[in-house]
Amino acid sequence: MDIPYSPAPGRTAGIMQFVRQRIAAREWPPGSRLPSLRGMARQHGVSKSTVVEAYERLESEGVIRARAGAGFYVAGPLAPLALSEIGPRLDRQIDPLWVSRQSLDLGAQALKPGCGWLPEDWMPRDAIRRALRQVARDPEAPLTDYAPALGLPALRTQIAQHLGTRGLAADPRHILLTDSGTQAVDLLCRFLIEPGDAVLVDDPCYFNFLALLRAHRVRIIGVPHAPDGPDMDRFEAALEEYRPRLYLSNAGPHNPTGARLSAAKAERIHALAEAHDLILIEDDIFGDLESRPSARLASGDRSDRVVQVGSFSKTLSASLRCGYLIVREDWLDALADLRTATTFSGAGLTQAVIARLLRDGAWQQHTRLLRSRLAQAMPRAIRLLCALGLQPWHEPEDGMFLWCRLPDGIDGARLAQAGLQQGLMLAPGNVFSLAQTAGHMMRFNVSQMDDPRLPERLATLIRTCPC
Amino acid sequence: MDIPYSPAPGRTAGIMQFVRQRIAAREWPPGSRLPSLRGMARQHGVSKSTVVEAYERLESEGVIRARAGAGFYVAGPLAPLALSEIGPRLDRQIDPLWVSRQSLDLGAQALKPGCGWLPEDWMPRDAIRRALRQVARDPEAPLTDYAPALGLPALRTQIAQHLGTRGLAADPRHILLTDSGTQAVDLLCRFLIEPGDAVLVDDPCYFNFLALLRAHRVRIIGVPHAPDGPDMDRFEAALEEYRPRLYLSNAGPHNPTGARLSAAKAERIHALAEAHDLILIEDDIFGDLESRPSARLASGDRSDRVVQVGSFSKTLSASLRCGYLIVREDWLDALADLRTATTFSGAGLTQAVIARLLRDGAWQQHTRLLRSRLAQAMPRAIRLLCALGLQPWHEPEDGMFLWCRLPDGIDGARLAQAGLQQGLMLAPGNVFSLAQTAGHMMRFNVSQMDDPRLPERLATLIRTCPC
Repeated sequence: MDIPYSPAPGRTAGIMQFVRQRIAAREWPPGSRLPSLRGMARQHGVSKSTVVEAYERLESEGVIRARAGAGFYVAGPLAPLALSEIGPRLDRQIDPLWVSRQSLDLGAQALKPGCGWLPEDWMPRDAIRRALRQVARDPEAPLTDYAPALGLPALRTQIAQHLGTRGLAADPRHILLTDSGTQAVDLLCRFLIEPGDAVLVDDPCYFNFLALLRAHRVRIIGVPHAPDGPDMDRFEAALEEYRPRLYLSNAGPHNPTGARLSAAKAERIHALAEAHDLILIEDDIFGDLESRPSARLASGDRSDRVVQVGSFSKTLSASLRCGYLIVREDWLDALADLRTATTFSGAGLTQAVIARLLRDGAWQQHTRLLRSRLAQAMPRAIRLLCALGLQPWHEPEDGMFLWCRLPDGIDGARLAQAGLQQGLMLAPGNVFSLAQTAGHMMRFNVSQMDDPRLPERLATLIRTCPC
Repeated sequence: MDIPYSPAPGRTAGIMQFVRQRIAAREWPPGSRLPSLRGMARQHGVSKSTVVEAYERLESEGVIRARAGAGFYVAGPLAPLALSEIGPRLDRQIDPLWVSRQSLDLGAQALKPGCGWLPEDWMPRDAIRRALRQVARDPEAPLTDYAPALGLPALRTQIAQHLGTRGLAADPRHILLTDSGTQAVDLLCRFLIEPGDAVLVDDPCYFNFLALLRAHRVRIIGVPHAPDGPDMDRFEAALEEYRPRLYLSNAGPHNPTGARLSAAKAERIHALAEAHDLILIEDDIFGDLESRPSARLASGDRSDRVVQVGSFSKTLSASLRCGYLIVREDWLDALADLRTATTFSGAGLTQAVIARLLRDGAWQQHTRLLRSRLAQAMPRAIRLLCALGLQPWHEPEDGMFLWCRLPDGIDGARLAQAGLQQGLMLAPGNVFSLAQTAGHMMRFNVSQMDDPRLPERLATLIRTCPC
């Protein structure tokens, strides 16, 4: 049916043109909400009824769409019909930030076997409460002043001592505290790479590495990952072909695979790094969950080519934000300056609380407990998933992650989207895969799978998934 | 009198060496307190008497000093000759990060009239201790989980309510919490500008804006600042000539000048922004120190062109790191994604502590007290500086900053360098000036000028400065 044409009067046409320009400039992307009628009217000095008319004409043209009681949205290529009812976030592609968004914003009622961290009741809440009370009493606590540029010396010393017990001796003077492990990697990227540089990552790898590196506009090169580390032939070929500046990787247990780097591969990576002038960033955020230490790029002798990154988010608290990096001495001042320029200083009070938990041994005791609980949860999760027809890629010795192949014909992204509608948060394989070759894979977190509702919910989802 | 030489036995020598190394590395700067005897003994696995002997020997060498009942301190201030021993930091040029470095790293003994924040004993330490205890007790406190992507809703609501009382109504849904005001500006720069873009700043402006913008590799354009806001002719000429994308400025009381934006200039800036497609970032970090509100770019009607930035570092605590930005709705998702990619999430526990201090009114009560103390300190500081031959650029109505012209023939950078050797931290004008035209100016912080030693120390410094 043709829509009869009648030109819009002057002010209405002005509003329509304004909206069209914003959409054309991609300032308002598909799915984004238009300004309210009142806001638009005020902003342009026109009456609300003028805006109503402009929006209705744009809607009849298919440029925007009204949603009952929820305003107007920019029209665009949208996912399956039912998804659009849930809200704009679900309209997004499954991209590297998908898991982060869902994990951070889903309510407490959701089941989260795809989540990247431990359940709240696995965390040392009583010890944290005690440390908060102790810091509140401590006359020397850094309550209000800015922290020193490199962070609280007491915590840097505690971190060095702890790493010493893991055979990763570090000089406290080479430790820079940050607000998170992610921020440490971001700071290093700002310092070390330029837009257009090549950076090596594992495929699959922690999805946020991909999001972070995209924010730095680098060329990301994936190297297939095996249970004992990267595929070395492909690693070497990538060095020859792309001349990357950095290799960014997770130490064991590897995210998402639970892999453990072998000593032979660690040695080979070091030799190649030397030959190709490659810098190695090793994110050791899960290392304290290892029952039996796997090889490290950042070993005791602290090659100038390796930067170790760590944090307490996975084993202590992700609400007490604190990460760190350990780096060669001649980079420290420049990194500290860059940190000052971009975030000014760290959270001294948080650092003091964490230092106390390390000093009195509460954190160390808690990580022992975590290792033992995970060692029990892992075989339980493997049994559950195998019963549902999923197949572990390998059986990790430790950590929280289990990387699984889905039953034939099931697509991970579709399963995750369907799960979300049922309050089940899953981590589809392709959010971890640069090459997008993990559509049939899924990452599970064995610590998040003890809810008695989970087996039935997951079984139903797999049985009914329209994949 | 010569001190007879006798070598220290093994363990004592080890402790002595450890202390000397820390001091040489400037990890323990002059004036900083050494670890307690007990703590040091435990850390090194030696007896307390070994530490006592090591400390006493170091004291006899003049390396450290004992204070009755208060432990041992690194000796200082050091004589000019010894400067080369202290380390590379003092050799650096006076650059935009100079003030940050010295403010963050100088020991508690130094006098800091150049510092950018209030003294520790002006801050609400008891209220913070109370809030920490309350959060430790609260069964709902976010102790261990990641915070939602936009930050704790309770704090975003408190911030919106508080801004409402200041006539700066905001929708809590448009507030994104960050780890600092600086991080908020950094995130906006990442989102809005490209290397090579032009950005307008005030000259003089907060020095860290210059450091931050340099990290973004933009073309920084300075506009001379007057007591009622930017020089509008120069502002408009800069828009014509450089077509900047952003104007980044401090709301009143302006840093470093204490200026107040006039309503007429605010209106003119808005009109020019509209005509030249300019985005305005207003850093309102000192706004709560205003006794009489000055004009704002981010006024109640929340133009799409303005982003407001704020934080609690200046009025509550810089150790509880938390800032925020208030931005048009259609930018929020992208900014939240960028934040997730680069720092993952905010510090939920810190946010909960601050929300509690706002909710029970402790912070609001404290800011009233601060305004009244500053109103008394300002005329005292003006009298002191005038008596020493310095001339205020104008007399600010409120805030902590006083921007002064030095006596003829005295160079601010040289004075600051000489001051540092005497434990006096000053903020020379040119660290705030893009055009480097403020060599004869200096920023003072009136809250940091009540130490009875200051008038004499400052007088001596000015009298003897080799400038």
